[in-house]
Amino acid sequence: MKPYKEMSREELLEWKAELEKQFEDAKGKGLKLDMSRGKPTPAQLDMTMGLMDVLNSGSDMKTEDGIDTRNYGMMDGITEAKHLMADVMGGVPAENVIVYGNASLSIMYDTVSRAVTHGVLGSTPWCKLDKVKFLCPAPGYDRHFAITQLFGIEMITIPMTPEGPDMDLVEKYVSEDEAVKGIWCVPKYSNPQGISYSDETVRRFAALKPAAKDFRIYWDNAYAIHHLYEDKQTQILEILSECEKAGNPDMVYEFSSTSKITFSGAGIAAFASSKANVEEAKKFMTIQTIGHDKVNQLRHARYFKNLDGMLAHMKKHADIIRPKFEATLEILDKELGGLGIGEWTRPLGGYFISFDAMEGCAKAIVAKCKEAGVILTGAGATFPYGIDPKDSNIRIAPSYPTAEEMAAATDLFVLCVKLVSVEKLLSA
Amino acid sequence: MKPYKEMSREELLEWKAELEKQFEDAKGKGLKLDMSRGKPTPAQLDMTMGLMDVLNSGSDMKTEDGIDTRNYGMMDGITEAKHLMADVMGGVPAENVIVYGNASLSIMYDTVSRAVTHGVLGSTPWCKLDKVKFLCPAPGYDRHFAITQLFGIEMITIPMTPEGPDMDLVEKYVSEDEAVKGIWCVPKYSNPQGISYSDETVRRFAALKPAAKDFRIYWDNAYAIHHLYEDKQTQILEILSECEKAGNPDMVYEFSSTSKITFSGAGIAAFASSKANVEEAKKFMTIQTIGHDKVNQLRHARYFKNLDGMLAHMKKHADIIRPKFEATLEILDKELGGLGIGEWTRPLGGYFISFDAMEGCAKAIVAKCKEAGVILTGAGATFPYGIDPKDSNIRIAPSYPTAEEMAAATDLFVLCVKLVSVEKLLSA
Repeated sequence: MKPYKEMSREELLEWKAELEKQFEDAKGKGLKLDMSRGKPTPAQLDMTMGLMDVLNSGSDMKTEDGIDTRNYGMMDGITEAKHLMADVMGGVPAENVIVYGNASLSIMYDTVSRAVTHGVLGSTPWCKLDKVKFLCPAPGYDRHFAITQLFGIEMITIPMTPEGPDMDLVEKYVSEDEAVKGIWCVPKYSNPQGISYSDETVRRFAALKPAAKDFRIYWDNAYAIHHLYEDKQTQILEILSECEKAGNPDMVYEFSSTSKITFSGAGIAAFASSKANVEEAKKFMTIQTIGHDKVNQLRHARYFKNLDGMLAHMKKHADIIRPKFEATLEILDKELGGLGIGEWTRPLGGYFISFDAMEGCAKAIVAKCKEAGVILTGAGATFPYGIDPKDSNIRIAPSYPTAEEMAAATDLFVLCVKLVSVEKLLSA
Repeated sequence: MKPYKEMSREELLEWKAELEKQFEDAKGKGLKLDMSRGKPTPAQLDMTMGLMDVLNSGSDMKTEDGIDTRNYGMMDGITEAKHLMADVMGGVPAENVIVYGNASLSIMYDTVSRAVTHGVLGSTPWCKLDKVKFLCPAPGYDRHFAITQLFGIEMITIPMTPEGPDMDLVEKYVSEDEAVKGIWCVPKYSNPQGISYSDETVRRFAALKPAAKDFRIYWDNAYAIHHLYEDKQTQILEILSECEKAGNPDMVYEFSSTSKITFSGAGIAAFASSKANVEEAKKFMTIQTIGHDKVNQLRHARYFKNLDGMLAHMKKHADIIRPKFEATLEILDKELGGLGIGEWTRPLGGYFISFDAMEGCAKAIVAKCKEAGVILTGAGATFPYGIDPKDSNIRIAPSYPTAEEMAAATDLFVLCVKLVSVEKLLSA
């Protein structure tokens, strides 16, 4: 089939009628599929059930340095969990790590909230400032944007390139505007595009010259070891040491978790940063909490033993998820290739495929899919304030359904893309 | 021995020389004991190790309503854990409960922090107000006071009576001053006095007529089922329903946890309040977290089954802790009874004994004890800003040491009380 834009009005009308018929048929199938959320599938969770056998009533509950994990104390996490999470984050020093509870999102929220009420290393609390801004590379992660929106922080969209955020723009904003206090980053296998930041991008991040001394890079390394392929893996530069080398040791907050390594609801999360930033976080923790669940930290550390154990585990995850990505991509290629009505990414890791429809079509495609029983992430969700200025980006999350379900959902998706695109071209 | 105040100067001097000799002997024993922290002792933690057997790799990880605890979702906690914690809190409706992670202190911090940045049910965020005040019944829990201090909230000390806080003062402040936004309460077996609020006190709380519509009672029900005696148990009125009856349904936030029921570092915590307050908390949670550790919630719910299971478990705790309280009280009675140099509480539950020395002696007693190897909670810690205006109150935490250690520590303590009191009387 030729590119849609080359079709005559008659051809489009004819094709539209055919697609509408197909859509009615599809609706009749009564699909009920959800590809909206980056959620592990039960098979992945089952694979991790050994975690539940690590500790039992006969277990030694002490850490390697003799701390009883059941009691109070050791507020910043147990040593073996620090080491494990330090390695997940690309080999940061374990003493620069704090291990938290089950949600890295809570750490991020907390870090922003603390800056709002108390500033950063002695800076003016953001609630006392007229204007605070964050840079938001987009498409990006909706829950990042939701945090900054909640605190009334103005969000500035930064376009993504295949190497990461547009660094010319980032440098300009960060160096010129003192109100710019942060940037949200998912540096590896980004949500939703699966983009990993190039070495040059990471180095340019580390070398930023912020106008605001309380500017921080919020480095959400959520997919650090979430490769889809054994032979095609991306590595990114370790940001803490890059920042230190560039003379900006305090400029980055790094976050990570095992939410998509063990159990999404019951993993462990971690924060890494410079000595000064870690000390500040700990100072607040002494007031904020009696510490996080050290028993679960011990369970995780003993289950994996070390990074190699975790990497072996992640291969099994990849074996479950990869076929779903491939099933999706195969249909996208076959059905939409060469039609000029959409572009999509081919991630080597992470949890998402990013799809860009023709401008002005994303919302209509998501609505059409819903009409026939397939739930996608809401169009716009990947942009600040939930508004995609081009109404073009759609996030596809292949992890939760089975490969067969994913194929059925994608069949419907491509049909909806075609139909909405034809309608768009006819209305132009 | 007669009351110290009736001694002549000569008698005091003679007695001082004798006490100093005893103190030198005591120092020579090389004691190294800590009675500073309300920490469960290893025997209590060992008793709960069955918790580690509840889940294993063969377990059904779904809740009674079919939710997979391992995955995302069910942000406000699993149903069976809500029921359990609702019953711990004296039978509040389970739908008014949110179950969190392992620390109720984090919930309290978070509740205050949210009011600072976003107000309460639409009120002006506290960070936009010139002055915010909290009432602090004292002696009280230092970590409560640390939270309000961190946020620059002015703390007003409210004296405690054997029935709870001085309600005349509470009513006056709350009804007359719009800047008063909250009061910290430990209503049952209070920290450190072990006082339980009388029915009249609870009813007067529920009937408060706050000047500030965002005034809340921060009801930290930390020791709800932490009885020391089976035949002498205190029950307090259930505050949520009392507030509702009094026409103040939104006026209370209740907090609880299993920190001193299962593992201090790895239990579950809960929040209970009115529908409106719970909805508000949930609205923020959708942005703040992906939810708390549901697997640990399931572990707790299955381990105890219901409140009866928990109460049976608490009896075993009492059997471990009670002898330590009794050993301490026996020595206090025997050595200090009738001397007029100190008063102490006889709690029926909770984790502490509160000791009031002669005015101006607490710091010196704590320092003396430290000199001979016994660590007590810092004098003043039980008051806002860490300042006890009378320098009189000392918190004794008998839970962690063994009964023998506790006796040895108390022997030293009473000696230090005597010595410091004699010095005080001589210097008067």
